[in-house]
Amino acid sequence: MQKHDSFDDFTPLTPTAAIAPATHGWRAKCLQRLIRLDLPVPATVALPASTVRAIAAGHPVDAEGILAHFGPAPLVSVRPSPENPDWGGPSTILNVGLGPALHARLSETLGPEAADTLFLRFIQGYAIHVARLDPDLFDGLTPGPEGVRAALRAYEQETDEPFPEDPARQLAEVLRTMARAWEGTTARLLRQAKGAPPEAGLGLVVQAMAQGFGPGCSGSGVIQFVDPVTGLHRVTGRYLGQSQGRDALRHRGAIYLTRDPRGPSLEELSPDIFADLLRHGEVCRRRLREEMQIEFTIENGALRVLDAVKVQRSSRAALRIAVSLAEDGVITRDEAVLRVEPRALSELLHNQVDPRMPRDRIARGIAASPGAATGRIVFSSAAAQASASRGEPCILVRRETAPEDIRGMHSAAAVLTERGGMTSHAAVIARGLGLPCVVGASDLRLDTRDRKFVTADGRTFREGDIITVDGTAGEALSGAPEMLPPALDETFHRLLSWADAVRDIGIRANADTPADAQTARDFAAEGIGLCRTEHMFFDEDRLVVMREMIFADTSKDRAAALARLLPMQRDDFAQLFDIMHGLPVCIRLFDPPLHEFLPHSREGLRELAEALDRPLSEVTRRAEALAEFNPMLGMRGVRLGVVLPEIYDMQARAIFEATAETARRGDPVVPEVMIPLVSARREVELVKTRIDAVAAAVRVKSGVDFDYRLGVMVETPRAALRAGEIAQHAAFLSFGTNDLTQMTYGLSRDDAGRFMNTYVNEGVFPEDPFHVLDVDGVGELLHIGAARGRATRGDLTLSICGEHGGNPESIAFCRRENFDYVSCSPYRVPQARLVAAHLALQDRRNPAPG
Amino acid sequence: MQKHDSFDDFTPLTPTAAIAPATHGWRAKCLQRLIRLDLPVPATVALPASTVRAIAAGHPVDAEGILAHFGPAPLVSVRPSPENPDWGGPSTILNVGLGPALHARLSETLGPEAADTLFLRFIQGYAIHVARLDPDLFDGLTPGPEGVRAALRAYEQETDEPFPEDPARQLAEVLRTMARAWEGTTARLLRQAKGAPPEAGLGLVVQAMAQGFGPGCSGSGVIQFVDPVTGLHRVTGRYLGQSQGRDALRHRGAIYLTRDPRGPSLEELSPDIFADLLRHGEVCRRRLREEMQIEFTIENGALRVLDAVKVQRSSRAALRIAVSLAEDGVITRDEAVLRVEPRALSELLHNQVDPRMPRDRIARGIAASPGAATGRIVFSSAAAQASASRGEPCILVRRETAPEDIRGMHSAAAVLTERGGMTSHAAVIARGLGLPCVVGASDLRLDTRDRKFVTADGRTFREGDIITVDGTAGEALSGAPEMLPPALDETFHRLLSWADAVRDIGIRANADTPADAQTARDFAAEGIGLCRTEHMFFDEDRLVVMREMIFADTSKDRAAALARLLPMQRDDFAQLFDIMHGLPVCIRLFDPPLHEFLPHSREGLRELAEALDRPLSEVTRRAEALAEFNPMLGMRGVRLGVVLPEIYDMQARAIFEATAETARRGDPVVPEVMIPLVSARREVELVKTRIDAVAAAVRVKSGVDFDYRLGVMVETPRAALRAGEIAQHAAFLSFGTNDLTQMTYGLSRDDAGRFMNTYVNEGVFPEDPFHVLDVDGVGELLHIGAARGRATRGDLTLSICGEHGGNPESIAFCRRENFDYVSCSPYRVPQARLVAAHLALQDRRNPAPG
Repeated sequence: MQKHDSFDDFTPLTPTAAIAPATHGWRAKCLQRLIRLDLPVPATVALPASTVRAIAAGHPVDAEGILAHFGPAPLVSVRPSPENPDWGGPSTILNVGLGPALHARLSETLGPEAADTLFLRFIQGYAIHVARLDPDLFDGLTPGPEGVRAALRAYEQETDEPFPEDPARQLAEVLRTMARAWEGTTARLLRQAKGAPPEAGLGLVVQAMAQGFGPGCSGSGVIQFVDPVTGLHRVTGRYLGQSQGRDALRHRGAIYLTRDPRGPSLEELSPDIFADLLRHGEVCRRRLREEMQIEFTIENGALRVLDAVKVQRSSRAALRIAVSLAEDGVITRDEAVLRVEPRALSELLHNQVDPRMPRDRIARGIAASPGAATGRIVFSSAAAQASASRGEPCILVRRETAPEDIRGMHSAAAVLTERGGMTSHAAVIARGLGLPCVVGASDLRLDTRDRKFVTADGRTFREGDIITVDGTAGEALSGAPEMLPPALDETFHRLLSWADAVRDIGIRANADTPADAQTARDFAAEGIGLCRTEHMFFDEDRLVVMREMIFADTSKDRAAALARLLPMQRDDFAQLFDIMHGLPVCIRLFDPPLHEFLPHSREGLRELAEALDRPLSEVTRRAEALAEFNPMLGMRGVRLGVVLPEIYDMQARAIFEATAETARRGDPVVPEVMIPLVSARREVELVKTRIDAVAAAVRVKSGVDFDYRLGVMVETPRAALRAGEIAQHAAFLSFGTNDLTQMTYGLSRDDAGRFMNTYVNEGVFPEDPFHVLDVDGVGELLHIGAARGRATRGDLTLSICGEHGGNPESIAFCRRENFDYVSCSPYRVPQARLVAAHLALQDRRNPAPG
Repeated sequence: MQKHDSFDDFTPLTPTAAIAPATHGWRAKCLQRLIRLDLPVPATVALPASTVRAIAAGHPVDAEGILAHFGPAPLVSVRPSPENPDWGGPSTILNVGLGPALHARLSETLGPEAADTLFLRFIQGYAIHVARLDPDLFDGLTPGPEGVRAALRAYEQETDEPFPEDPARQLAEVLRTMARAWEGTTARLLRQAKGAPPEAGLGLVVQAMAQGFGPGCSGSGVIQFVDPVTGLHRVTGRYLGQSQGRDALRHRGAIYLTRDPRGPSLEELSPDIFADLLRHGEVCRRRLREEMQIEFTIENGALRVLDAVKVQRSSRAALRIAVSLAEDGVITRDEAVLRVEPRALSELLHNQVDPRMPRDRIARGIAASPGAATGRIVFSSAAAQASASRGEPCILVRRETAPEDIRGMHSAAAVLTERGGMTSHAAVIARGLGLPCVVGASDLRLDTRDRKFVTADGRTFREGDIITVDGTAGEALSGAPEMLPPALDETFHRLLSWADAVRDIGIRANADTPADAQTARDFAAEGIGLCRTEHMFFDEDRLVVMREMIFADTSKDRAAALARLLPMQRDDFAQLFDIMHGLPVCIRLFDPPLHEFLPHSREGLRELAEALDRPLSEVTRRAEALAEFNPMLGMRGVRLGVVLPEIYDMQARAIFEATAETARRGDPVVPEVMIPLVSARREVELVKTRIDAVAAAVRVKSGVDFDYRLGVMVETPRAALRAGEIAQHAAFLSFGTNDLTQMTYGLSRDDAGRFMNTYVNEGVFPEDPFHVLDVDGVGELLHIGAARGRATRGDLTLSICGEHGGNPESIAFCRRENFDYVSCSPYRVPQARLVAAHLALQDRRNPAPG
């Protein structure tokens, strides 16, 4: 048997006892704080984790010694006290110490009814939790002398021994049972899933029972001082006369806690006690620096505080509570910032399905873009646009989306796809648009021809039926459940402004459209880090010209088509510059393969042939000739810029003319022009030479002197490796971590969905690398690229602009590598600002060595 | 004017004069050697490059001083003497010094006819080359006094001055003209294209004319002592009486050089002179250590040797000459090895279109696989197989080839495709099979439905027409031109065995079939470095089972289909082991995406549905579901191995059962099992665990104890970066540079063809990185992977097995990085062996610092 230092055995709680969460658990520590605050806490003894571990290992328990602290014939409760309240623990056991002798005495003091109730409860609890008897044995037993006898008989029959009468033995068994329960495999796995270390121990708290049964004003309840859903100040809770423990939460009695038109309340009946509760709440808030829920018992008119825990709260309540505590000077602003979990912010930006309402789930997929929206089903982008033009919200349901679905996505209230992963086209675009989106709902069987889908349970939904996409939960629901609105109020903005005050890395937004840019500004992004220009060409009238350009036989014809696109592009950029008001705007030159702009169907090709006035056979042949085996690795990005330089010429002219126009209106802007898919320095040189020439020409023609910055999007491993020489011609490098991840792993994000789940579940990849930046592989390339680029050019601006941009892990990485900013979807900007603030504050607390 | 050291002005050639190729050029040096060998070389003066440069810059020429070395009234020739004979230079000018006075004297000594001929020639040559007059002015002038007068008149009319009579002035002008010609832009570009440095200078050689005109035995000729096509010892050359310079090469006279049934010969008429020539040839061979061609003049019965140059030679002659010189002890074996250009070897392995025959070119493309073959056009693999079964050679003409064309390619004599680049499917497979192949013949317009193609000049070729593919030249020819057979004789093998004696890096072959393996052994590969197993499943009977496996609904069904493939795979491996006879065989586990095994046409899907007895709609749906956006980056390689482990289980079992079987026959082999497309260590762990289990099971069941080595094919940038941890579970790393290049550049080799030409022509990429290893980018990943892998495991075997394996640049890189071996197509093994030997020998000559 292990030897234990008897000093550790147990500690009566006094204001000065040596109690710490790491040894005695959070509950013991919390109770000690309540004692220090002079709250009326019953006598309490804390057992440290070392003692509990010894008990579990078979060490004898000094139950008599513990009970000696509670006076003669005590009645006690035993509660779990792990280091962190989230780690769970065995159930509380009440009324330990109750045997026939005490039962008889309680019959006198509390009345026979209350005594029988308590005894029956204790016999049941002990039998089930300690002796591990079948709960069914006690079904149908009613309080009263008969019930007690039947329970004692059942216990004796099953265990072949009488119910233990000795309080010390009862307590010893209860402690041993609770200690062993903590060691069970299930309990261990559950708490480890919540972040507990393998060696986490359990403290236990033994406390004198306060009796809510009996004469006078007696009962028990819980009270809290804020609304757990809204976070607003409001007293809520439950009270139940003639009760103990958490009875009040299970039963509704005849007395309400607060004034209530439906009946009498504790507030009215015992205003002194109610005032004490309010006072205790305020003391807790000030001194524990937190909104607490207080568990109390009233014993014949005397208030006892048994416990206090942090109020459970919704994301929006958490934010409001933190801000309120800081404004009242209870905590600092930094502390308030740290108290809000960044991931929770996204819930505040969008409608949410009310969690209290029933859900009729019809499909489950990947939660690709948060928020919820209801609308009528449509199966094509055309139908979505038609629906939008009628003012009817619609849900776009597709096998997967392609660039030509952009307009349809803009028109839809939400998107649901059968295929795809976190970084599929649908997911990326939906996040950019702040549109609820569920992808990879592979249990749907879609039949786009008949405009319907069938769910796993055989229900058929057709175009026009109403469904709801819950992009936060990754589910599609039938019908239109109740929603909670977004919470973008003053409190939200105040907290983020505090976050900005400590943040030390820039946050920009990826924004392709004026709407995106407006969202980015609303969320206080410090500029646009990635404006993808190709989306601008999917507008119906532009698409026709685009296709003429693609089918042009000569450089001259191509230039003519591009000349018609020029004014449209110029307007695009002028609008963005206006909205961004002098903040930097980084424009990526045309990137996708040209075949993305061609129709895929025979029908579409026929229309195109008519529009271009060319034979169908020729249009088909040339469209086929443009097709690629691996479009991701094909003729796109700077390769187009080198081979068909007229496209970049036009875009550069549009950018610079818009710059000159904006400058003339007195709002100068320094546009950033970014070259995509670079793999060699010479590509940058060639493009830079032409763009410089265009800039010079526009300066002369407009008479406006403007600056611009030219940079490179680092998306290929080679560009990262050669960043030293590439930086000779680049003012900035922005890492496109989507493509870089694809190429580093040799893994197409569009095709990875088929096995990514298996891979993550089997731990082949610790995380989906398209979701969480792969620091080991892709990260090393970022590190190499950044270091080599900066070695060439000390003032090189560094950033990432992939889907990873908004992730906590990526932001942490970019801060470590001294990047200038991260750029993410507009709707992820608030989270990114908060994450960056958390990281800066954590660094202050734990400064990095060196 | 520049000051020049007069010492440098010119140097009369004597055995001890300070003459070096770097200062006076190769010709001056060669002539000095001939003088040292006591050959009858006329008096010669050499001008160093510094002098020539000064002359070009306007420095006056000391022509009188030069002429003083040749006695009174000399007649001289001026020839170019660059440092390297390949760098070209201005044309030789003969008979300088000839004016009316000398003309009159020559009329007496040589006769008026010869004197007129010489004078007319000189006037013409001087007028055209020095005075830059139009050659047309002298058309139709016939030798004779009339012609001379007309020429002098024409000169005077055009230049407004009389033809210069002063020999010193003539020489000065000739020297100045030749010196300036060397500085011309075209001349500079041409020689730089042949490797000359920008600062390369020109030496000039002034030599007393030997007169092949006149009384007695007079004439000129060239003689060589080996056949320039075969390299065999045989005296060949030309002789022309009453001639000078290279006249004999342009005109056929009445006297042959050697005995000839058609007429008298120098050999018979002047046996002493002929014997002298043979003796001079032998002296040159022994002392200049080379087969020389001698240019000579006979002046009234006296032999003069004007010059000697290396015999021009075909690749096969070069090899035979080098081996013969070494066997005769003239040069060392190492020297012989260095004298054979590795790239030339490939010409010896295959039929070649005879270069002396006329060519009717019908298409031009990329020379994807060397050699030439003639056959009837077929447009499908089925037709190719039918043709082969009739024993008729055929040429497979396709837009591009796909894995299902493998059987057709095996049946074809050569392959011609409209699309694709050096590393397209057709090119890679053809090189592996040693099949002549031209890809990317984009000037063809293919019409597979009507079974014809139309050439750029409008000719139509139909199925059955006979054409020839010249894969060495990258051309398709009409009809069946004459061929030269391969030259894989004893000499070839002897030279390579000398190469092997100095080589210090291993050479293995990529071999998928028994035929490949046999070729690999015939070319003395030291093992198989890459056996791609997927080709084994395209056999018709296997394909059916393969498709059953793909469509299996359960792991059990899949295993059942695989069980039927097992014995076939086992036979595949047993055959390879037999052929390789204990040499290492590295087998790559299944790699391609499964959809490559499905039919692409509706017709094919219907047949498949019947074969599988499933509804067409289901088969179509599942085939569509398997399709991928970017197959290169999709569900293939180890990803299949992790998600559908039964496939690798079967392959491992087949490998180990074949190993056990081979061992039982007394021929133990240690198979190497290679996992493709790895990007994370855990992938290797998972596969290794299962393969180890299969090996243990086969050991128990067979009762044979065998070893095997498990390794990883490094094809993703991430695998290279993480090689340190991957090497924990790998005995070897083999870099698949094809895929690694694709991923490092973000560039699909199948799609790069569209712009690679532009890219290479504009210098964006210095070379096609699929052709020449990109040392800067991909090479750094190889370096990182090798270093990190070896840091983990000092005895890690390192190799490359991509298409780059056989390239000189790659072999050089791999030697520098201390790789163990390179693996390349069987037909590139000889070249690789020779390249490796060259590198080792070059290192011995110029040891690397440190």
